[in-house]
Amino acid sequence: MSKKKMDLNSDLGESFGVYKLGLDAEVIPHLTSANIACGFHAGDPAVMRKTVSLAKQHGVEVGAHPGFPDLMGFGRRNMDATLEEIQDYVVYQMGALQAFARSQGMRLQHVKPHGNLYNMAVANPKIWEAIAEAVARVDNALILVVLALSKREPLLEIGRRCGIRIAFEAFPDRAYNKDGSLVSRREKGAVIEDHEVVAQRALKMALEGKVVGIDGTEIELKADTLCVHGDNPSAVQMVKRIRENLIVSGVEVTAMKNFM
Amino acid sequence: MSKKKMDLNSDLGESFGVYKLGLDAEVIPHLTSANIACGFHAGDPAVMRKTVSLAKQHGVEVGAHPGFPDLMGFGRRNMDATLEEIQDYVVYQMGALQAFARSQGMRLQHVKPHGNLYNMAVANPKIWEAIAEAVARVDNALILVVLALSKREPLLEIGRRCGIRIAFEAFPDRAYNKDGSLVSRREKGAVIEDHEVVAQRALKMALEGKVVGIDGTEIELKADTLCVHGDNPSAVQMVKRIRENLIVSGVEVTAMKNFM
Amino acid sequence: MSKKKMDLNSDLGESFGVYKLGLDAEVIPHLTSANIACGFHAGDPAVMRKTVSLAKQHGVEVGAHPGFPDLMGFGRRNMDATLEEIQDYVVYQMGALQAFARSQGMRLQHVKPHGNLYNMAVANPKIWEAIAEAVARVDNALILVVLALSKREPLLEIGRRCGIRIAFEAFPDRAYNKDGSLVSRREKGAVIEDHEVVAQRALKMALEGKVVGIDGTEIELKADTLCVHGDNPSAVQMVKRIRENLIVSGVEVTAMKNFM
Amino acid sequence: MSKKKMDLNSDLGESFGVYKLGLDAEVIPHLTSANIACGFHAGDPAVMRKTVSLAKQHGVEVGAHPGFPDLMGFGRRNMDATLEEIQDYVVYQMGALQAFARSQGMRLQHVKPHGNLYNMAVANPKIWEAIAEAVARVDNALILVVLALSKREPLLEIGRRCGIRIAFEAFPDRAYNKDGSLVSRREKGAVIEDHEVVAQRALKMALEGKVVGIDGTEIELKADTLCVHGDNPSAVQMVKRIRENLIVSGVEVTAMKNFM
Repeated sequence: MSKKKMDLNSDLGESFGVYKLGLDAEVIPHLTSANIACGFHAGDPAVMRKTVSLAKQHGVEVGAHPGFPDLMGFGRRNMDATLEEIQDYVVYQMGALQAFARSQGMRLQHVKPHGNLYNMAVANPKIWEAIAEAVARVDNALILVVLALSKREPLLEIGRRCGIRIAFEAFPDRAYNKDGSLVSRREKGAVIEDHEVVAQRALKMALEGKVVGIDGTEIELKADTLCVHGDNPSAVQMVKRIRENLIVSGVEVTAMKNFM
Repeated sequence: MSKKKMDLNSDLGESFGVYKLGLDAEVIPHLTSANIACGFHAGDPAVMRKTVSLAKQHGVEVGAHPGFPDLMGFGRRNMDATLEEIQDYVVYQMGALQAFARSQGMRLQHVKPHGNLYNMAVANPKIWEAIAEAVARVDNALILVVLALSKREPLLEIGRRCGIRIAFEAFPDRAYNKDGSLVSRREKGAVIEDHEVVAQRALKMALEGKVVGIDGTEIELKADTLCVHGDNPSAVQMVKRIRENLIVSGVEVTAMKNFM
Repeated sequence: MSKKKMDLNSDLGESFGVYKLGLDAEVIPHLTSANIACGFHAGDPAVMRKTVSLAKQHGVEVGAHPGFPDLMGFGRRNMDATLEEIQDYVVYQMGALQAFARSQGMRLQHVKPHGNLYNMAVANPKIWEAIAEAVARVDNALILVVLALSKREPLLEIGRRCGIRIAFEAFPDRAYNKDGSLVSRREKGAVIEDHEVVAQRALKMALEGKVVGIDGTEIELKADTLCVHGDNPSAVQMVKRIRENLIVSGVEVTAMKNFM
Repeated sequence: MSKKKMDLNSDLGESFGVYKLGLDAEVIPHLTSANIACGFHAGDPAVMRKTVSLAKQHGVEVGAHPGFPDLMGFGRRNMDATLEEIQDYVVYQMGALQAFARSQGMRLQHVKPHGNLYNMAVANPKIWEAIAEAVARVDNALILVVLALSKREPLLEIGRRCGIRIAFEAFPDRAYNKDGSLVSRREKGAVIEDHEVVAQRALKMALEGKVVGIDGTEIELKADTLCVHGDNPSAVQMVKRIRENLIVSGVEVTAMKNFM
């Protein structure tokens, strides 16, 4: 029987000009995929170059992390952009990052929308479809990363229609409702801080494709990649622990492109 | 003996949001190459998509027209960016436009810096070299468009070193000093407005590789492409006249990639 | 019996850098109040200075026209900014324009939100209240311009609570629903183009405080100021006609501060 | 004999969106004047509001710290803006900050240009003059902060001509050339890190109006305000030490407006 496989992704390259954000150099050794900001909600050309270089040094795959053109709001505010505007923003940002990858002899592996562009897509699958189309037109070898849900079929169908692969991501440090959706950050208990608990949840996601919901129900939640964070030293330690626990339990931690 | 060949390039896609600039649709039928703004000094993702589409419809080749990150100044102010910053800006902008080209089944043909990035490079060949390196690293099939000068060798050498082709551009509507440099726009007579005179200068450039300087001297000035303008209806008429005059006189007006 | 009075306002100063928008110099002789963009959705420091200067030359009062920080979308997209963010954006933009007014010996007369900031406030009076508070804290001599509705009391109450004057504006060239709201621009007949019809509607607004709705009903709609446009030569002619028709019919066309 | 007086100023409010910069809350208790970024090179409307509020709580005077419109470069790159563009940028930014001050019942005390706008003015007094004019037109009660030099007269003359007060600032942690100019940061020894040495230099500036140059010469350098930093915990400690040393030695540490 083949080994279970899991990708670990994190949002990197979110610094801008003199402003530093995230412990990129500390967290990257523990990742397999880096989602790199592309200058709209965070990141700038120099940061993009350096982040691609860092990923290359560590053998980590790179992906575009496009967001809304809202640096002041860090892409965390809904904007009622049209589907066509969203496609244009995704194409622009992907392309910019692709050039930095190519100029260092790398290729993009994936695209994962950022912040409220991601959240709006989760709430409205027409946005997923628009993004999938945009990604496919630029390069259909790319993987689109979406939120893992109990119902995978509609998103898989979008991927088939557009001719690109869809990767599902889960959040081991987030509580889940019994329908498989994330508990809102505004609710108590939405974010789990205990490293061991999170590491065990990550392992259950990897081995069984399941998560225990906030009400105790066991929920089906197949994921190809787990989203982890490098915001502070404790977060970095948590990522390290998640990875060790996966490996020691027989999961192969490897970039999504290797098993999709 | 083979026919003389000449490319006609113009700066397009300089609109931004609700703001319209240039008669792109009117001038494009007369061009062979379009330099498309990439969102830093002008242009936005929607404008880039539409401009690539317009070029595709007309069989015109597309190139990136990267500038300084100065929308308020339209990229027309010197910024003492480092060579590395300039490279990052060029890579970013090229990549963004490449993605729009690719998503419409096109490829970039060339890169031509805009405004004061171009002017600063003309004044300081280290900037040309930095740009050439950046272009080559992203895609060494691209052509870098530079100002035609009497002394071509240093720029050709930069191209050889970086492994990309260098195209020289001349300005038929601009007066030239006897050393082959452009007469500053601040000087009287710097811009020639008579359509017939400009069309004849363009022809002399194409057939003889020469221009008559402001002091009457005949100057050697070999050009692969002529820069023309679509700012207003009269400018568009001038482009039409330039092109007709070239064709009727036996010059083949064709994209630079076809003869370089 | 005292003469009826009416203010005529228009959005000016919407150019940016090299980009020109609107026939400001042509329309301004016909106005009494200019709403000047403040650099977030349109306008830049040079345009602001020039627009204040133009208003001063023509004896037209100036007001701030703050919008969302979305130059690419011209402030015409909803952004889910918090009430506090909205207040901060309004204070910032008002202040910037005040400095240009003061440096030319003028004072701001009013504040009128732009585009979707205005539309979101119309849909959610908490936004009007937040804006009124922000305006009042900076300068309680300012007038806040809001959409004239059949029900004026809630907005007047906001004005009293914050200690500032509220001016109601109506749109003579827009169709009205029978509840006094504007017919959406997506509906047929939302915008009236016949100059005479619009001039007559403006007059009815001024003399009777009424408008005929799209269904023929006569609607109460008291307005202190009419919003007019200077987008193109025909629009300018329409403003001229509106003003002449008001004056010839005995309405005094004067800045809102003179009668509020 | 009256007590010697000295102002302590520092650059604050340089955060932007989610990006934090500087230990504003830690350093502010030790200051008398805060230079607040205004959204062009750093700062945003929310940050401006919060920084004014922080200054108010601590009884610290606020001033505008306008910079070039270059967030990506933090205003630390020369831009060949015209004198008129510079004036427009200063007016815009001053006005924006004034509105935040006014909305909290404060007034601006001063204006001090940031980064390369400051450096370009030091190198070219026409820029000081343009800025002084712009400041004076908006509010001639404001103080313009300039670099203290051995030759004060030309700058004082600009102040008299424009009708505003000029404050000279010195840098106790920077080495000085014997002509009274700052040793370039590129030179060895340009920045002094020993807290005691810096505190003694600050005291000599306050008591004697002198500084010992890098070559050992004693240089006349009268200053009204000393620029200090809050970048990191050690810098904050240095400010505390500078202030204590001044007070214990009989210098009154007070805002510049109190003695100019």
